[in-house]
Amino acid sequence: MPYVNIKITEEGATKEQKKELIAGVTNLLVRVLGKNPATTVVVIDEVPLENWGIGGESVEVLRKRR
Amino acid sequence: MPYVNIKITEEGATKEQKKELIAGVTNLLVRVLGKNPATTVVVIDEVPLENWGIGGESVEVLRKRR
Amino acid sequence: MPYVNIKITEEGATKEQKKELIAGVTNLLVRVLGKNPATTVVVIDEVPLENWGIGGESVEVLRKRR
Amino acid sequence: MPYVNIKITEEGATKEQKKELIAGVTNLLVRVLGKNPATTVVVIDEVPLENWGIGGESVEVLRKRR
Amino acid sequence: MPYVNIKITEEGATKEQKKELIAGVTNLLVRVLGKNPATTVVVIDEVPLENWGIGGESVEVLRKRR
Amino acid sequence: MPYVNIKITEEGATKEQKKELIAGVTNLLVRVLGKNPATTVVVIDEVPLENWGIGGESVEVLRKRR
Repeated sequence: MPYVNIKITEEGATKEQKKELIAGVTNLLVRVLGKNPATTVVVIDEVPLENWGIGGESVEVLRKRR
Repeated sequence: MPYVNIKITEEGATKEQKKELIAGVTNLLVRVLGKNPATTVVVIDEVPLENWGIGGESVEVLRKRR
Repeated sequence: MPYVNIKITEEGATKEQKKELIAGVTNLLVRVLGKNPATTVVVIDEVPLENWGIGGESVEVLRKRR
Repeated sequence: MPYVNIKITEEGATKEQKKELIAGVTNLLVRVLGKNPATTVVVIDEVPLENWGIGGESVEVLRKRR
Repeated sequence: MPYVNIKITEEGATKEQKKELIAGVTNLLVRVLGKNPATTVVVIDEVPLENWGIGGESVEVLRKRR
Repeated sequence: MPYVNIKITEEGATKEQKKELIAGVTNLLVRVLGKNPATTVVVIDEVPLENWGIGGESVEVLRKRR
């Protein structure tokens, strides 16, 4: 029954990587809390760099400064 | 004043259907809790199939297996 | 498979009212989008009045001014 | 360490405006609660007008009626 | 930089289990996407049974029927 | 119409500080995006230290190590 929302910056995560995240989080909840995978929902949100801020600046600005 | 977030898979929900969801949820909160519709916010997020997992797999994979 | 999060102010919603919200939202998604109720998750968050703001003020202040 | 999610309707907020929101929210948390900006995360979600409802109607409908 | 929100029903998850969830999710994001653990935020919300619905009913009702 | 969710660790934020956060975020959205304060919703969630993770550890553990 758990609901897990994973927010990451939109930087090209592949389908395979997202499958790994979904499987990994679901297995973690089954292993640690004995949850039922059949009703464990995982939603991945990919956020544009200009819409994600840390340290008071957008990640887009931070990436350019690297 | 309520805030309702509806997350669904991105599978072609039409404008009319989304209007129905917005009206239906708002009316439900007015009827059950007497809330003020004027400040009842409803946000619908449509999530790509590869970003939604259930049972440890992405819905994209599950749909293909159907 | 939908996930619905309903945030309301913590003002004594009863168990019966919350059951009505859960049933109402689930039925709405079944009727409008043909969703499977068995994997439709509804989570209700009840927020203390001092933690909810509208119009730049907390609801606690607004309620006292009424 | 705070996490702030700002949801707005998708109506052309510019990069500069989003930078201002990120900086403004981060500075507010530093000033009011003494939080560490380096781990203050701000995520801005821009929602299509047909996916945002208020008063039981979609903002798209409301905008057309203006 | 990822933000992960895990919502589970309030059924006595221990501090140790929550540490395992935090470590497990963070390691997963480091392994799969090479994310920086120092800015990976994980928030666990524990929701009362009467506030969580599935299949149109509250988990509290479902647990009693078991 | 914006919806802002501020998640902070549960470390004794006072009513006054929360009023400042609500007013500050609302004014920011009015100033930067010209939003209508009357329908700007701000929700503050205060999360127990054992439920918040960063760097793969819970804040409760990190605070004790300080």
